[in-house]
Amino acid sequence: MSFVGSSLIGYSTGSKTGTPFHGINPVTGLELPEPFYPADVTEVERAATLAKRAFRVYSRTSGAERAGFLRAIAQELESVRSEIVARVPLETALPEGRANGELGRTIGQLKMFADLVEAGHWVDARLDTAQPDRAPVSKPDIRSMQIPLGPVAVFGASNFPLAFSVAGGDTASALAAGCPVVSVAHFAHPGVSEIAGQAILRAAKSCNMPKGVFSLLQGTGQQVGVPLVSNPAIKAVGFTGSRFGGMALSKVAAARKEPIPVYAEMSSVNPVILLEGALGSRGESLANGLAGSVSLGVGQFCTNPGLVMLPEGSPSEAFISTFSSKMDESKGGTALHPGIAHAYRSSTDAKQKHDKVATLVALDSPSPTGVAPFIFRTTASALINDPSLTGEVFGPSTMLVTYASTEELVEVLESLEGQLTGTIQYDASDLPLNEDVLLALQSRVGRLILNGFPTGVEVCHSMVHGGPFPATSDGRSTSVGTGAIYRFTRSFCYQDMLGEALPAELQDGNPLGIWRTVDGQLSNL
Amino acid sequence: MSFVGSSLIGYSTGSKTGTPFHGINPVTGLELPEPFYPADVTEVERAATLAKRAFRVYSRTSGAERAGFLRAIAQELESVRSEIVARVPLETALPEGRANGELGRTIGQLKMFADLVEAGHWVDARLDTAQPDRAPVSKPDIRSMQIPLGPVAVFGASNFPLAFSVAGGDTASALAAGCPVVSVAHFAHPGVSEIAGQAILRAAKSCNMPKGVFSLLQGTGQQVGVPLVSNPAIKAVGFTGSRFGGMALSKVAAARKEPIPVYAEMSSVNPVILLEGALGSRGESLANGLAGSVSLGVGQFCTNPGLVMLPEGSPSEAFISTFSSKMDESKGGTALHPGIAHAYRSSTDAKQKHDKVATLVALDSPSPTGVAPFIFRTTASALINDPSLTGEVFGPSTMLVTYASTEELVEVLESLEGQLTGTIQYDASDLPLNEDVLLALQSRVGRLILNGFPTGVEVCHSMVHGGPFPATSDGRSTSVGTGAIYRFTRSFCYQDMLGEALPAELQDGNPLGIWRTVDGQLSNL
Repeated sequence: MSFVGSSLIGYSTGSKTGTPFHGINPVTGLELPEPFYPADVTEVERAATLAKRAFRVYSRTSGAERAGFLRAIAQELESVRSEIVARVPLETALPEGRANGELGRTIGQLKMFADLVEAGHWVDARLDTAQPDRAPVSKPDIRSMQIPLGPVAVFGASNFPLAFSVAGGDTASALAAGCPVVSVAHFAHPGVSEIAGQAILRAAKSCNMPKGVFSLLQGTGQQVGVPLVSNPAIKAVGFTGSRFGGMALSKVAAARKEPIPVYAEMSSVNPVILLEGALGSRGESLANGLAGSVSLGVGQFCTNPGLVMLPEGSPSEAFISTFSSKMDESKGGTALHPGIAHAYRSSTDAKQKHDKVATLVALDSPSPTGVAPFIFRTTASALINDPSLTGEVFGPSTMLVTYASTEELVEVLESLEGQLTGTIQYDASDLPLNEDVLLALQSRVGRLILNGFPTGVEVCHSMVHGGPFPATSDGRSTSVGTGAIYRFTRSFCYQDMLGEALPAELQDGNPLGIWRTVDGQLSNL
Repeated sequence: MSFVGSSLIGYSTGSKTGTPFHGINPVTGLELPEPFYPADVTEVERAATLAKRAFRVYSRTSGAERAGFLRAIAQELESVRSEIVARVPLETALPEGRANGELGRTIGQLKMFADLVEAGHWVDARLDTAQPDRAPVSKPDIRSMQIPLGPVAVFGASNFPLAFSVAGGDTASALAAGCPVVSVAHFAHPGVSEIAGQAILRAAKSCNMPKGVFSLLQGTGQQVGVPLVSNPAIKAVGFTGSRFGGMALSKVAAARKEPIPVYAEMSSVNPVILLEGALGSRGESLANGLAGSVSLGVGQFCTNPGLVMLPEGSPSEAFISTFSSKMDESKGGTALHPGIAHAYRSSTDAKQKHDKVATLVALDSPSPTGVAPFIFRTTASALINDPSLTGEVFGPSTMLVTYASTEELVEVLESLEGQLTGTIQYDASDLPLNEDVLLALQSRVGRLILNGFPTGVEVCHSMVHGGPFPATSDGRSTSVGTGAIYRFTRSFCYQDMLGEALPAELQDGNPLGIWRTVDGQLSNL
């Protein structure tokens, strides 16, 4: 496999000046041979300026044209499947099977947004008819729809080198909305990023998209991200990563002369509540399920269940024993990059030393970049007194928390920050579910799961992958599913603009045949 | 008319301690007799805590119940029409006719949101069907909808004591969304605020709404607003007022442990472009229309046309002469409060002294709190060199700007900050409209108006009263029309929750008969 090794700006390649960096093979801890050169400030500026120019043309493309572009990207990605599947394990230690599956998901997301914008009614077209004779003043003709915000900066995640990275959900939804994208490759997988970036650019060329509709910048968030988010041409930011990184970019965005929205998915411990009836009737299967969810992807999922609440008593003790044995048999794996292994060791060390925490499982790491399971146990009252115990540990670890009463469970839930998900495992004997528990959980999550586990985020119309701060920086939105497109649009209306000067979505006669709200009533006529 | 004079917190009245303040009659400049006592920090805390408790119940009311509440508020406001219409002129110098009209608009807004939530499909219900047998993993049942954010702090505007104040659009849309409201009365019209607040509370009682679903705090933004927006119970902010005030609250909201969204409508000069053909064929009527729009409400509208661009040449000179004579004949009026009159004098003084600005009309103020028309003239090149010339002057003033070429017009537009509206007046001979002009204007406004004037904001489904920063702090949204409800909601999904535990909007069989997106297709079955 050969790489250009520079940024990809518009249809040109960037310079190869400055100090190059290398991907690191997490399994060996050694640098991979290919050098990658970070974008310098003039390249960041050029990518942003080209994106601004491209917006003039790209924002006015039809849904059908954008659908064609998104499907062409999907096809180009499929055509380099073997290169991607070979490179992902080298840069991330994720196995080939995962790379194949995640590429399928990435391609699926692009096609889903293509279908959405081709169907067209996502723009929420609204028409209110003029009443020239209305007294005391005439009513004008008003028509509104969602229009694209402008160029979007997209920051790839370390833990999803495909589905939440260069050609991932943020890029797909921004392009679907009509926004050019300047993507910042995650420094841990520059090669996978380049392969995906080249695929997007081949698709852009074949679809005659304007230069600058997509650029890929190599480098770190600090080097490249700060000047990019500060650039006036950029109008929104998509980010998936750490709380530290997300908050840093949010501050940069808020300090601009024109502040812009930041959609940062940051941290979540995804509380899981195991009720007594469920523990009694299917404790073994719950232990298997939880062990699988904690271990999936070496625990490196934003939906990893990091906090499990159980009622004090023998069913919980039996469950804890079974669950601990299962985790004891698991082996962990290699972290996505050495920084994650290092952070995992620090945070599990701190928990091991905490005097209110018992360590139930503590396995040796298989290698210096390895992470092995750590299972901790504490009580609800300890958690309430020390909120640091609820912090995210990124890796195959979870904290079991026993509570003395439903009131104490509610108190724990109310002490938690915002989360992506909340889960309740129940049995018929646990019904009806306590309303206070449901309400406390619902008010701090984006997705409420019954009798399931939080890992596994279905890509569909109704998925909400988001949640109150600090799960995300903007808890109103989702980053997965078709709803993600609305992060990159704004409401816009025309007053007394008529005929073909209007976008097709708003023209008389409904030439696109989409569902529209006409004088308050949905109509596809 | 007698007033309680304290804050209204839940169903109780606040204390009458601290230093009282008085409304000021802008016409006389004298204090009105009734004392009003600002809320102290414990009262702010109590209102926020009650709102949080009320949210538990109110967030789960049905659309029909909320509709009943909103209509009851409308009815209670109607029942105190005479008191409102008597008090508005005393506190704001706005005439009785305006008070009557604005009350009608306020009542209309409440009824519009009642209709919206009763119809119910605004929640954007989405259902994706489970596929238990899907390989390699089963697909869960996912259902999503918009749910309320939580208690909302609403800050009333000085220039709309009814429609953008205590019972105005922010309150109506937040209550419609399922959010309790803590309203901060504008210090300039505490009496009108109390009348409206009492009406809302009578309606809340008659509809058996929980204590704290609405509270009214008296006091200033500094005294009351800062602790309120800092309170963890508050989950969003609606504000209409100055850029200074909106930015101050935005900073407080962003600095919280849990940052929250702020919807602040701040400043806008609403650029108007008069094209040559239109000036030639109907210059007289344009001069009349513009004079009316500049003078409406003594120029104290957020959509006041503060920047008018005309091509150099004789049609523009003729227009400027006609328009100036018309403004010379107008008399101005009394400002809403002495602070506005003072700020108007400062900013018109500065423009008069500017060496690139000609003063075409400068009338003496009719009284110390009066504001009289000021019409200024400059060139596009002066404006591009000194962006301060584009700042908002709140009052009956506008800046006429001549441009040498379409390129220069585009350059002026691109130098402007975000605006609520942009207007083009054209004639058949001006067609086709220049695409660069259209694009430059569209990219910095929320509403594009053809052959009209920006004052007059129709309350309807398609209205967008919003725009890029600094017109608003969140240019994705609207504060007028049914779309305003989405400022106070977030996306939420249930995974494998079934039966009656789900909200009615998401239940099998569609008991509410609303439009929903089922596996990607709209259906009302």
